[in-house]
Amino acid sequence: MPRYKLTIEYDGTAYVGWQLQAVGRSIQGALEQAVTRFSGEAARVNGCGRTDAGVHAIAQVAHVDLAKAWRTDVVRDAMNAHLKLMDDAVAVTAAELVPETFDARFSARRRHYLYRIVNRRPPAPLEAFRAWHVTRRLDLDAMNAAAAVLIGKHDFTTFRAANCQAKSPVKTLEALDCRANGETVEVRASARSFLHNQVRSMTGSLVEVGLGRWTVEDMRRALDARDHARCGPNAPPYGLYFVSVEY
Amino acid sequence: MPRYKLTIEYDGTAYVGWQLQAVGRSIQGALEQAVTRFSGEAARVNGCGRTDAGVHAIAQVAHVDLAKAWRTDVVRDAMNAHLKLMDDAVAVTAAELVPETFDARFSARRRHYLYRIVNRRPPAPLEAFRAWHVTRRLDLDAMNAAAAVLIGKHDFTTFRAANCQAKSPVKTLEALDCRANGETVEVRASARSFLHNQVRSMTGSLVEVGLGRWTVEDMRRALDARDHARCGPNAPPYGLYFVSVEY
Repeated sequence: MPRYKLTIEYDGTAYVGWQLQAVGRSIQGALEQAVTRFSGEAARVNGCGRTDAGVHAIAQVAHVDLAKAWRTDVVRDAMNAHLKLMDDAVAVTAAELVPETFDARFSARRRHYLYRIVNRRPPAPLEAFRAWHVTRRLDLDAMNAAAAVLIGKHDFTTFRAANCQAKSPVKTLEALDCRANGETVEVRASARSFLHNQVRSMTGSLVEVGLGRWTVEDMRRALDARDHARCGPNAPPYGLYFVSVEY
Repeated sequence: MPRYKLTIEYDGTAYVGWQLQAVGRSIQGALEQAVTRFSGEAARVNGCGRTDAGVHAIAQVAHVDLAKAWRTDVVRDAMNAHLKLMDDAVAVTAAELVPETFDARFSARRRHYLYRIVNRRPPAPLEAFRAWHVTRRLDLDAMNAAAAVLIGKHDFTTFRAANCQAKSPVKTLEALDCRANGETVEVRASARSFLHNQVRSMTGSLVEVGLGRWTVEDMRRALDARDHARCGPNAPPYGLYFVSVEY
């Protein structure tokens, strides 16, 4: 059976998240429905990374096996035609044929996330559901000093959601960087893989540092505690973007 | 009475446009409601430029007279608190005290608009209601050659909506520029003032040129005809942004 790699952009606002759930619309469910409608096949769409309700993706990756061999541009265009009929929130930006050894989740070598914060006093209507609005000025130097504490191989239990299903809390964070882009602060995180809620919980704690509520030493103590109760508040989902995956 | 200059950002998606109307929510109405709720005064909010339903603003400008003298940061923050209770779509980004001779509409020396087009085959969910999706490749050189035809002082009757209330169809278009920014094409237009729908109708005609349906000569003939029936299709409202005003 031919295997297709799909690259997917979505606005997660109105979805319960990537993963199929008993109740509510999921990104995975929308994609599987689109596959069935164009091909007549009931196929599983296997994603690279699960995203929570409200989280967006610029280039999420998934794979799907179809009995029939389709041209890749037909897969992309036919899925988009059906997704468009559902709503404007999910699109297949690329479809490629890949070997059966390719697995969207397990073949991933590096995942990239972006967290967007609008850092100004007035609200930003054009960024509603697209960025977290933080009104007090963030100290980026302090945030980057605290980010440096988190980079590397650590037990990230502090930054792990209670319902995280990863076997081990030990992960290697390859990059964590806070940068101003106009009135927006962009937090970029890269790693082979992340724990559930790791980017949002790290970002929430970085913002505590940026606001002067935590010192860099507080971040170190929080990490060393390996205790989720020591984590800062989670950054809200709508500022988070699954940016890309390297294979 | 102190006069306040308000700078306003909005997502026009769910609004009937800037102007108060008998039915539906308007930006002007939301701002006047916010003024009344914080100050107790029923005051008119006078905008620099009317925008249609679905059109956005990065920095629309308006003026309002209040009987009581408030600190400008109180005006901004109090209006935002009330606007936030209505929804996340309108915000006052700045409030300033101005002389009574300042008129948001009549003192404006130059208005700047931006029209955003996503130019790629797959849909762009993160740009839904934020940009026009044009799937076939646009020829930017041809578009800029056609834009050059429109720059300057002309009778813009061809690019004027039937319900335009301007006294004269003669306007001086100071700049009209098409530029690629990643997968987005940005059309920027500047003039002291514009006719109703002028930017959307010029953009729609520029896209005809970019798709090869019109030549540059067709654009010249359309302009010279001074006939609205000769205009290309209007670009949809959701790609248009009122960017800023110079006084």
